[in-house]
Amino acid sequence: MLMTIAKFEARPELRQELLELARMLVEQSRAEDGCLDFGGYRDIMGSDTLLVVGRWIDQGALERHYESAHFQEIVGRFAELLVEALPSVSLYEVVEMDRL
Amino acid sequence: MLMTIAKFEARPELRQELLELARMLVEQSRAEDGCLDFGGYRDIMGSDTLLVVGRWIDQGALERHYESAHFQEIVGRFAELLVEALPSVSLYEVVEMDRL
Repeated sequence: MLMTIAKFEARPELRQELLELARMLVEQSRAEDGCLDFGGYRDIMGSDTLLVVGRWIDQGALERHYESAHFQEIVGRFAELLVEALPSVSLYEVVEMDRL
Repeated sequence: MLMTIAKFEARPELRQELLELARMLVEQSRAEDGCLDFGGYRDIMGSDTLLVVGRWIDQGALERHYESAHFQEIVGRFAELLVEALPSVSLYEVVEMDRL
């Protein structure tokens, strides 16, 4: 199982636009084959950070995600709404150790 | 590096109380020795899911977190605010593979 965590910093004045686009991305990504979970989350501490967390059955599912028309189109429009054009996206090979 | 992701489902009528407690937990956890990152995030799709994501240098740091007075006190008060008393907490041994 792979997990991706992407952190996007919205430009404050474009926060709503980024949220709307992110909601579209969540809906369409959840419908993808091989997507175990996909969600968008806002920082409760008041920053304009948007966290997008995805879980994928394997590398192939993740690559299909990145190559999908909706990902390309939506994330392509993110850039102009962000403080930094390139978001921090971390990809983890995750071995779930334990459920506390 | 270890990562914990905890998902809490707030009772709708107690959503604000949970957020306030979670903010306290974030502030105090960030100050802990061995905590690389700690944040609380709300679901942008409108559910009452609260995601708490922590990154720790090692198992020792994570155990000190769980044994800390503030964790015990704050998370102890979460239970009455949640739909399910026991949150889903997943612990991952994370090997950061790549920054896309």
